[in-house]
Amino acid sequence: MKTDGSDKIRAAILGASGYTGAELVRLLARHPRVAMTVITADRSAGKSFGTVFPHLAHLGLPTLVKIEDADWDQADVVFCALPHGTTQEVIAGLTKRLKVVDLSADFRLFDVGTYAEWYGHEHKAPDLQKEAVYGLTELKREAVKAGRLIANPGCYPTSAQLPLIPLLEAGLIESVDIIIDAKSGVSGAGRAAKEANLYSEVTEGIHAYGVASHRHAPEIEQGLSEAAKSTVTVNFTPHLMPMSRGILSSIYVKLKGGAKADDLRDALVKRYAGEPFVRVVPAGSAPATRHVRGSNHCLMGVFADRVPGRHRVGDR
Amino acid sequence: MKTDGSDKIRAAILGASGYTGAELVRLLARHPRVAMTVITADRSAGKSFGTVFPHLAHLGLPTLVKIEDADWDQADVVFCALPHGTTQEVIAGLTKRLKVVDLSADFRLFDVGTYAEWYGHEHKAPDLQKEAVYGLTELKREAVKAGRLIANPGCYPTSAQLPLIPLLEAGLIESVDIIIDAKSGVSGAGRAAKEANLYSEVTEGIHAYGVASHRHAPEIEQGLSEAAKSTVTVNFTPHLMPMSRGILSSIYVKLKGGAKADDLRDALVKRYAGEPFVRVVPAGSAPATRHVRGSNHCLMGVFADRVPGRHRVGDR
Amino acid sequence: MKTDGSDKIRAAILGASGYTGAELVRLLARHPRVAMTVITADRSAGKSFGTVFPHLAHLGLPTLVKIEDADWDQADVVFCALPHGTTQEVIAGLTKRLKVVDLSADFRLFDVGTYAEWYGHEHKAPDLQKEAVYGLTELKREAVKAGRLIANPGCYPTSAQLPLIPLLEAGLIESVDIIIDAKSGVSGAGRAAKEANLYSEVTEGIHAYGVASHRHAPEIEQGLSEAAKSTVTVNFTPHLMPMSRGILSSIYVKLKGGAKADDLRDALVKRYAGEPFVRVVPAGSAPATRHVRGSNHCLMGVFADRVPGRHRVGDR
Amino acid sequence: MKTDGSDKIRAAILGASGYTGAELVRLLARHPRVAMTVITADRSAGKSFGTVFPHLAHLGLPTLVKIEDADWDQADVVFCALPHGTTQEVIAGLTKRLKVVDLSADFRLFDVGTYAEWYGHEHKAPDLQKEAVYGLTELKREAVKAGRLIANPGCYPTSAQLPLIPLLEAGLIESVDIIIDAKSGVSGAGRAAKEANLYSEVTEGIHAYGVASHRHAPEIEQGLSEAAKSTVTVNFTPHLMPMSRGILSSIYVKLKGGAKADDLRDALVKRYAGEPFVRVVPAGSAPATRHVRGSNHCLMGVFADRVPGRHRVGDR
Repeated sequence: MKTDGSDKIRAAILGASGYTGAELVRLLARHPRVAMTVITADRSAGKSFGTVFPHLAHLGLPTLVKIEDADWDQADVVFCALPHGTTQEVIAGLTKRLKVVDLSADFRLFDVGTYAEWYGHEHKAPDLQKEAVYGLTELKREAVKAGRLIANPGCYPTSAQLPLIPLLEAGLIESVDIIIDAKSGVSGAGRAAKEANLYSEVTEGIHAYGVASHRHAPEIEQGLSEAAKSTVTVNFTPHLMPMSRGILSSIYVKLKGGAKADDLRDALVKRYAGEPFVRVVPAGSAPATRHVRGSNHCLMGVFADRVPGRHRVGDR
Repeated sequence: MKTDGSDKIRAAILGASGYTGAELVRLLARHPRVAMTVITADRSAGKSFGTVFPHLAHLGLPTLVKIEDADWDQADVVFCALPHGTTQEVIAGLTKRLKVVDLSADFRLFDVGTYAEWYGHEHKAPDLQKEAVYGLTELKREAVKAGRLIANPGCYPTSAQLPLIPLLEAGLIESVDIIIDAKSGVSGAGRAAKEANLYSEVTEGIHAYGVASHRHAPEIEQGLSEAAKSTVTVNFTPHLMPMSRGILSSIYVKLKGGAKADDLRDALVKRYAGEPFVRVVPAGSAPATRHVRGSNHCLMGVFADRVPGRHRVGDR
Repeated sequence: MKTDGSDKIRAAILGASGYTGAELVRLLARHPRVAMTVITADRSAGKSFGTVFPHLAHLGLPTLVKIEDADWDQADVVFCALPHGTTQEVIAGLTKRLKVVDLSADFRLFDVGTYAEWYGHEHKAPDLQKEAVYGLTELKREAVKAGRLIANPGCYPTSAQLPLIPLLEAGLIESVDIIIDAKSGVSGAGRAAKEANLYSEVTEGIHAYGVASHRHAPEIEQGLSEAAKSTVTVNFTPHLMPMSRGILSSIYVKLKGGAKADDLRDALVKRYAGEPFVRVVPAGSAPATRHVRGSNHCLMGVFADRVPGRHRVGDR
Repeated sequence: MKTDGSDKIRAAILGASGYTGAELVRLLARHPRVAMTVITADRSAGKSFGTVFPHLAHLGLPTLVKIEDADWDQADVVFCALPHGTTQEVIAGLTKRLKVVDLSADFRLFDVGTYAEWYGHEHKAPDLQKEAVYGLTELKREAVKAGRLIANPGCYPTSAQLPLIPLLEAGLIESVDIIIDAKSGVSGAGRAAKEANLYSEVTEGIHAYGVASHRHAPEIEQGLSEAAKSTVTVNFTPHLMPMSRGILSSIYVKLKGGAKADDLRDALVKRYAGEPFVRVVPAGSAPATRHVRGSNHCLMGVFADRVPGRHRVGDR
């Protein structure tokens, strides 16, 4: 995709002042084939990157600009880390020459009716939605390569779909009675100042939220339904707990057609054998979020339950 | 039970140097009808209580002694906060005049065969076991009052049985497919120095442990089976997370005979109406451990799932 | 101060929705001589107390009202936990019959010029200021008893003045070169949603803030100057660290006139001998904030330095 | 130093099971010029590296061996991350061909008498001690390059010496009345299971320890005395706080000969201008440990105090 004399892809980052954008910058800064040429952050426009992100001050990144001042000629690809809702209009306004990776929720749901139902407003770019590719790279690599507009999956949906989709596709588990009990760190809620995310509200406690009503449920069900070739409805219960990063999803499934826990493990090991960022932990050990903290790795493990016919899949 | 001239029950605390014992002392110190007359702590024997527990130094408690130096004539009731295994012998050696509340796991399982299977050694006081009352006070108040040897329930079993037993007794939920996804703070593992409980191993992370093999599973099943009048087997998955105190058990159950989530809530509200330490939170809100931190309160809530026929019960 | 038939003082709490107000309610709820009859919380007016503060739902407290709807006839004393700045006008509007304990910073500085300099606006009730008593109870008990308007000390100033004032009064330490290195939990910043206080910004880190510019410096200096009978200027450096509650002030002082560290300890032990909430820890041990967490206790310790003539005083 | 056909230095890591060793492995794994060829971990010998360190499982590192089974022919340099005390004998037994970087405290103090006084036993390799180079790389680069046995500085001494040595050398600060108030994360205490480092003992609290008696005091004084060309004695007070990694040292110094805070800042900026891992933060901002977490960066800032003649230097 090299479009200039160098061997690097030129990336524009929109919305680098949030946690998503800052983390993206941190990861891309270590990528040998990417040069960040444009970085926008509306509130901090005009400031040096290192002033706003002291931990990245040594990277020599460009000065922050407003989106309207971005020089798109300097970019081959645009990473969009803006709030959902506003993202649709920004992306609709970009020249079609640019490949776009959108980290918001704006293009994740294929059905704009489902989007409207869960996000509370009409989709603002339904035509673009048709073009969007759901970017669960490990399971959609060719589509991601070929697509122009990539909808980066949500955090919870990634943790649920990576283990479940291969198992549903292989017919090893039932598509009913799937229970996803997910525990998330706080950065997933973003950097916006909300009372619920204050240190004193979060430390030393845990609670469920969005029970039976979280927006990531339809995104999970979209992927699982495609894999099962039938409508899948899950029980998805997210919890907020005191850690900055990471998600642990404890997933309870029913085995199908005589499958054993080891069959599930084998299927996952085989499916992710060549993937650098996904790993099945050894039998008998459970994934721990501290083993992937600060990385883009995902761990998963499989345990047989004591109750015949009911097994447990854990992942990052 | 007043046996001396005063109106206070004289309590001996065995094993006050661990987290269980120290917390017991903290709670009893505020009890208007209890006087702590004997406190043992083998490693700290001879020291003043305030030296070992600076946060309780203002209580004027007796100097710590070894168990063998305890003056049992000074006590009406003995609270035993010793490690499991050793507890059986200590209690077997006490005069029968003393009422005993045992906080270890040693007398919780009625069946000494089940005890041997899960705890890895023969029960050392099978005759005493026959006498033991399972002390889930809210559900066994009369037996607890009448009994001489009370086996205080485990932490996870308390959080699972308080919401589930009334629902099973009322026939509102199925006794199969009960899934208990529990998240625990670290003090439940006790004060023993283990690498797994070091600050740097626990902070900012979460992981499951004891999957399908935790000793609290048979204790939970014992109580639920009694309530259901049939053998109940549960999926119980405990997780360790960064908080000192508290447990959140997210419990997934199937409704029975046309029951609705509101019927479950009503049953729990009614069952615990007169209980000072158990409260059902309002519909639509989820219990948070920070609301009971440092207290002996238990909160529980009920949510209907989006999937017909599958509902969720959460509690402390 | 009993003004009705009962033996309880009737207290109104203004601003119970913040951390200060909620904590005050928690402490007063356990006080045998206080009945909370009026509780205001503007944003939550009309709600039951237990809805807003689930951990205090069992206390049976009155429904929250707006300040303008408070029935002052129901109160003998008013505790004011409002933001500084607005407090002055609210208190100025209260009938003089009411005793007032103000927990904001509005009446702590005797000199309204100093107030204007540090708080950025003119004092709005300079006449009331003249009447105000600085409520460092352990050192001003008679004035606090006699006064009508009590200015409750700031958190940092309490931790600095309790150990330093007796030592300055006794002439045991120099009044120059006092260095106060203070580490604070996050609740001191209040419950307002600010990015700097988000969990992900605070956990697993520490930093100084307000260096040489924190508003508590003049408050500390006011108290120390009165004790030293000369103008005292301190080096005060606050730090924000990951804990909800508590302050540890490590204070570095120079000994005067041949005094030894033990003389300092003896003076503090003697000064606070009868005080239930202040305790000097044994020689050789250092105060830890976890020993006072959730209480209104203050611990202090004294260590001799290896450098002759320089000693260290630590406290909560 | 390339000794084989490749362009990589072959490194042996001794003691990779502790926090120091594991972190060293993490950093070296990203170094383009280093290949880890031997890794020892006595308790885990025979296991794959990824089993013991799941977060590094993707690195393809060699199987863990016991020290006595290490093949020294495979190494050019040895990094020693063993407990102090045992280190001296291990290093004494290595062939002199190997360059050694010792991360323990065993060779940091030039004077073996001082070592014996602070560490409680005679130095076991006094001849090797004479050869050792104190490896504060930014200030001793040429000696570190030339030396065979490098004593890696302690954590606190690094945070104190990096800002203070250039200022003492430049004559900008007095060599008396230096106060170092240091706040450390828990991993500095190592991975050994000690009650004091349990999660429940550390979370949500802070306390000083080793007051006027910490072993890093003589190490700090050794470096400062060399810089000042006179004996320097410091007040060094370490604190333990709830974070895994990082140290913040708030250092209070007196200006000398009319120097201003800006002169100190300028001297530090100039001194560390070419250093990739040390950075002076902009005037008015204070270093925060979260900005260097997980890296080997050190930040420092300088603030003028309100008290004339007394200034503050903070660093990581």
